[in-house]
Amino acid sequence: MGSLSSLIWAFWYILPAYFANASPVLVGGGRPIDGGRTWRDGRRLFGDGKTWRGLIGGVSIGTLVGVVQYRLTPSFYGDFRTAVLLAFLLSFGALLGDLVGSFFKRRADLPRGAPAIGLDQLGFLISALALAYPVKTLSSGQIIFLLVVSPFVHWGANYFAYKMGWKSVPW
Amino acid sequence: MGSLSSLIWAFWYILPAYFANASPVLVGGGRPIDGGRTWRDGRRLFGDGKTWRGLIGGVSIGTLVGVVQYRLTPSFYGDFRTAVLLAFLLSFGALLGDLVGSFFKRRADLPRGAPAIGLDQLGFLISALALAYPVKTLSSGQIIFLLVVSPFVHWGANYFAYKMGWKSVPW
Repeated sequence: MGSLSSLIWAFWYILPAYFANASPVLVGGGRPIDGGRTWRDGRRLFGDGKTWRGLIGGVSIGTLVGVVQYRLTPSFYGDFRTAVLLAFLLSFGALLGDLVGSFFKRRADLPRGAPAIGLDQLGFLISALALAYPVKTLSSGQIIFLLVVSPFVHWGANYFAYKMGWKSVPW
Repeated sequence: MGSLSSLIWAFWYILPAYFANASPVLVGGGRPIDGGRTWRDGRRLFGDGKTWRGLIGGVSIGTLVGVVQYRLTPSFYGDFRTAVLLAFLLSFGALLGDLVGSFFKRRADLPRGAPAIGLDQLGFLISALALAYPVKTLSSGQIIFLLVVSPFVHWGANYFAYKMGWKSVPW
């Protein structure tokens, strides 16, 4: 899959997506994006767990991470505009993937907060990689590496958030 | 994500994994791989759905697909040995991913055949891409494309198998 440094750069690249994905735990709450609306199956479109504050807060935090990343490693991005646009697309992609995932979870009649093994760990990542692709992408080895290790990072992070009392469930 | 032909080559590349993943529906049954053994949580290791016949049949069918692929497009593979080894790794990777997925589903106490949105559609694919990577890989754009469209291909195929009476559930 490449040298150790290329694997560390893969994490560095995807960092805004991780931050955006994790931030609704801290900045979430408020008015739900679906405004209480239901799909034709009578169930909520996304549910109360997906809010405007979580979305805007998550994209803001992820994009800010990109600003800090550019200050630390400007040559990885080339120019400031690329770094910020990349971080925005990674963050927005992560939360869009999460939203689409919620839509499918509601269709499968899973309650809010119920785990969907795979979707929860991979949906945000694939969506982030897809949206950011036109601006800057990784090598195929780096992408495969992120896909294999992300579920474990995700589980570890959620378990940590649960132990810290930030989440009510360990997933 | 690249030209249309590069997306068709991405499907051509991954085809043995799809065949291996689908074949236990047809060739499955027989003695379970876990031999009835349980994990420390008291639940089955993989369950009755994962059998030696399904594993060996799936790897055989997927590898045979690679033989046919080499006859049709030899220049894509370079040589016969590469084509067969690639098809074997894609098939074995797909079924290994499926097996690991079953392990996590049993740990989450999901019954045999219960859907896990995401894991069912992506686990086999990521595992196949990872095992085949050292022999031949795709571009990052092709990988992202497969990750985004595979869930829909998977759902379509399962729904077709259900309608044909090959599967008892539409997932």
